[in-house]
Amino acid sequence: MAVFFDLNRKSRIPLYVQLVTQAREMIARGALKAGDRLPANRELARQLNVNRNTVITAYSELEADGLIESHVGRGTFITAVAENRRKADAPTKTAPSPVMWSTLMISTQRDRWLGSLLGSQQPRNTISLAHGLPQAELFPLDDFRRSVDRVLRKEGRELLQLGLSGGYFPLQEYLSSHMAMAGIKAAPEEILITNGCQQSLDLIRRVFIDSGDEVAIENPTYPGAISVFCCANARFVGVPVGDAGMDLDALEDILSQRRPKLIYTIPTYHNPTGARMDMAARRRLLDIAIKYRVPIIEDDIYSELHYEGPLHPSLKAMDQHGVVISINSFSKIGFPGLRVGWIVAPRVVIEQLNIAKQNADLHASLLSQAAIHEFSRRGLLAKHVRKVRRAYRERRDAMLEALKRYLPEEATWSKPSGGMAIWVRLPEQINTSEILLHAAERGVTFSPGEHFYSSRPQFNMMRLCFSIASPEVIEEGIRRLGSVIKERLVSLKRQRAMRAPEAMRALV
Amino acid sequence: MAVFFDLNRKSRIPLYVQLVTQAREMIARGALKAGDRLPANRELARQLNVNRNTVITAYSELEADGLIESHVGRGTFITAVAENRRKADAPTKTAPSPVMWSTLMISTQRDRWLGSLLGSQQPRNTISLAHGLPQAELFPLDDFRRSVDRVLRKEGRELLQLGLSGGYFPLQEYLSSHMAMAGIKAAPEEILITNGCQQSLDLIRRVFIDSGDEVAIENPTYPGAISVFCCANARFVGVPVGDAGMDLDALEDILSQRRPKLIYTIPTYHNPTGARMDMAARRRLLDIAIKYRVPIIEDDIYSELHYEGPLHPSLKAMDQHGVVISINSFSKIGFPGLRVGWIVAPRVVIEQLNIAKQNADLHASLLSQAAIHEFSRRGLLAKHVRKVRRAYRERRDAMLEALKRYLPEEATWSKPSGGMAIWVRLPEQINTSEILLHAAERGVTFSPGEHFYSSRPQFNMMRLCFSIASPEVIEEGIRRLGSVIKERLVSLKRQRAMRAPEAMRALV
Repeated sequence: MAVFFDLNRKSRIPLYVQLVTQAREMIARGALKAGDRLPANRELARQLNVNRNTVITAYSELEADGLIESHVGRGTFITAVAENRRKADAPTKTAPSPVMWSTLMISTQRDRWLGSLLGSQQPRNTISLAHGLPQAELFPLDDFRRSVDRVLRKEGRELLQLGLSGGYFPLQEYLSSHMAMAGIKAAPEEILITNGCQQSLDLIRRVFIDSGDEVAIENPTYPGAISVFCCANARFVGVPVGDAGMDLDALEDILSQRRPKLIYTIPTYHNPTGARMDMAARRRLLDIAIKYRVPIIEDDIYSELHYEGPLHPSLKAMDQHGVVISINSFSKIGFPGLRVGWIVAPRVVIEQLNIAKQNADLHASLLSQAAIHEFSRRGLLAKHVRKVRRAYRERRDAMLEALKRYLPEEATWSKPSGGMAIWVRLPEQINTSEILLHAAERGVTFSPGEHFYSSRPQFNMMRLCFSIASPEVIEEGIRRLGSVIKERLVSLKRQRAMRAPEAMRALV
Repeated sequence: MAVFFDLNRKSRIPLYVQLVTQAREMIARGALKAGDRLPANRELARQLNVNRNTVITAYSELEADGLIESHVGRGTFITAVAENRRKADAPTKTAPSPVMWSTLMISTQRDRWLGSLLGSQQPRNTISLAHGLPQAELFPLDDFRRSVDRVLRKEGRELLQLGLSGGYFPLQEYLSSHMAMAGIKAAPEEILITNGCQQSLDLIRRVFIDSGDEVAIENPTYPGAISVFCCANARFVGVPVGDAGMDLDALEDILSQRRPKLIYTIPTYHNPTGARMDMAARRRLLDIAIKYRVPIIEDDIYSELHYEGPLHPSLKAMDQHGVVISINSFSKIGFPGLRVGWIVAPRVVIEQLNIAKQNADLHASLLSQAAIHEFSRRGLLAKHVRKVRRAYRERRDAMLEALKRYLPEEATWSKPSGGMAIWVRLPEQINTSEILLHAAERGVTFSPGEHFYSSRPQFNMMRLCFSIASPEVIEEGIRRLGSVIKERLVSLKRQRAMRAPEAMRALV
């Protein structure tokens, strides 16, 4: 009998998969029946002008599925199983579901925070200053590819097999010695490898936060942290952040009145403000944590991206009393797509986090971990960090320069000595989410400040990232943004001017 | 001045890291002071007999850290910062922690379930029949390495950059067309890529299980599922499993009296029993789910590993009413170390799971996802599955043969038509955890059955995995195990014989 397959060679779907799917459909609608003979694979390959292996693979799939069987010397036939299955499958239309999914799901999940920042596709010519990401053009692709190839040759069997939940041990060892350079003493067993800082925060939540427990977080802060600590019935109390980082007077006030379980802070190049705590503030924060016996979660993710002046040691490095849990990752200096980060904590805490990690997903991708380890071990990461530091510093300078040139004089902004972003304050009557709508039309985007607040959002703030665009592109982006803001200011002034006489009349 | 570094060339710690660490220590203990001059890099390289780049890298690190500074023409000097930091760091002994970590952590986490199965290192000659894992010797290393290299060449920039939480879209597309071959209709948007089935279960818990909610799970079942559903105040009710899979009469009984939120089942090659639901049972289970409006979580992880007879369609393929959420992964057929799995569910559910995934860890490793996609797209995964099916079938046969030969006649066991393990029942007076202690001394290990029960554990069951040993090794393992069990039976009979007169006496 003749069997008609209609292969689409331009499709991303492999040809053998198309063959299997179409054969299955023919069986389902009765075009192929039990006992029907299929063409020999050589014959079908010629007829369809495909490689014979394509047909062999397709037939193997169908045979493994019990839909066809081959008899040496006689040929390949549709089985009775196929026929029975067709009958069972008969009503091909899906009936309405008796399950009301939306009522079954609990919706303690916060709105899709990252979706709003990343999910939407942007037009090609848009200049994005929205994301705190490394620029893909700077990725050390060849060095990285060679590192991956090397580890797969050296220990491919171990990397594809299930690993330990604590992490790939050579990476734990490497991090232990790498952190020693920054003054952090941590044995490999005091380090848990995670899928990045987001997971680190989530694991810490699992281990520490019981229903109703409270966490002190900076306000504004990283939206992913707000998202974690507002799940699972945790509550949070916001601590204001100024030019010098967390407001420690406010923190002491809070701690003298309530009992948060943890203090979450980004002391170095705070997201989104870019603020950095000085040495005195760091010492005072540690003293406060010790006095009130509240552990500090230190998010150290931006600390390698420092551009000038001395680098202050991390809280973890200064911590003489073991009150700091430090989280960090490779995502800002190079490889967000690989999802590798880590937690440093006292052994007793790492043990519990390890169990939580096991329950969450067994362990982080061994291929990602080993690739980063090989790349780092050979000194290539240190080289890469020097390269991105130079590049981002230049971009920060370009952005500061452009802000001076193009933003109205009413605007002020941070001058961070590291990190990826500048935090801009516009006059209070301006809402940056509205500005974003107009800016996107002109081909430039950024993150409105309100996304970073857990409470009392300020609507006149915006975060401008300088890491993912060249100095020239940054200048053009700020130029467009500046003109949108200036136009908005003019139109606001005009509205006010028009309303002023009315206000006068209201007074009389 | 002379600076003495003591480099260990055999260490895994890179030489430049050793240099930095030692310089830091010298500064800390005052051996290097502000204003001290370091040797020129060329000079130090010669002195230490290392590559000049090693010294350059080390100096760059120290400079970036603010500890040294270079002045063109004059040399490299220790900075005042270093001196100040030394003073700040002065008390190098860690003081006792004021934080009582153990009281801060909540311990709803179950014991380290996988640790007991995987964590401990076993002696070299031990034959392990404990783990349901693919055998590393069968991994298609060269094909895989070439696939990785190809995707990194083709789209390295995209793979190292942050991705979308739903997954790497080409993999979602591939899975959509691949599952169509097995009769599952799912658009790419109805598929969420996860880090494997453990995470899939955890995400489902996050979205569906509120404090106090109940889940119906098979008893025995996969320990990782027990671990997930007993966290976060969820409760579970166990449904017995027989040779034909879940006891559906018991399930109906339960559903007529209580209202579990979900039913979790492994209908195809159930872990640990190897049982498979037949077509009638599958239809009845779907009918029950529809009648009581309770969604089914179908764990389909073993379904590709079938060795004979027709493959029954999955519940998801038979599901006309959209009551099934299906989870699956690449971990049993090939790549547990890469941590890639997926969930198929109605779009409204995937949307919530997507948010949960974002909160959990943003997304799965893009390198892992793209490598598996490339490998699968080229038909190499289908080829590999055929290879492991042949190998595991041969091993299953070897194990069944060996069990017949070496186990005492009082023992019975399953004859699974797929999967990775055989479930053995020993006489009731035998405790398999005790047997394991003796067996390990003879160089063979397995999983005692009690680990798989959420309640009412049976102590005379054991799971023997045949996937990670060759037929010869399996025979030798079962031979050793058989002799341990027989000796135990003899000694139990002897004890009973000795106690019998006492029992007689007690009667009189």
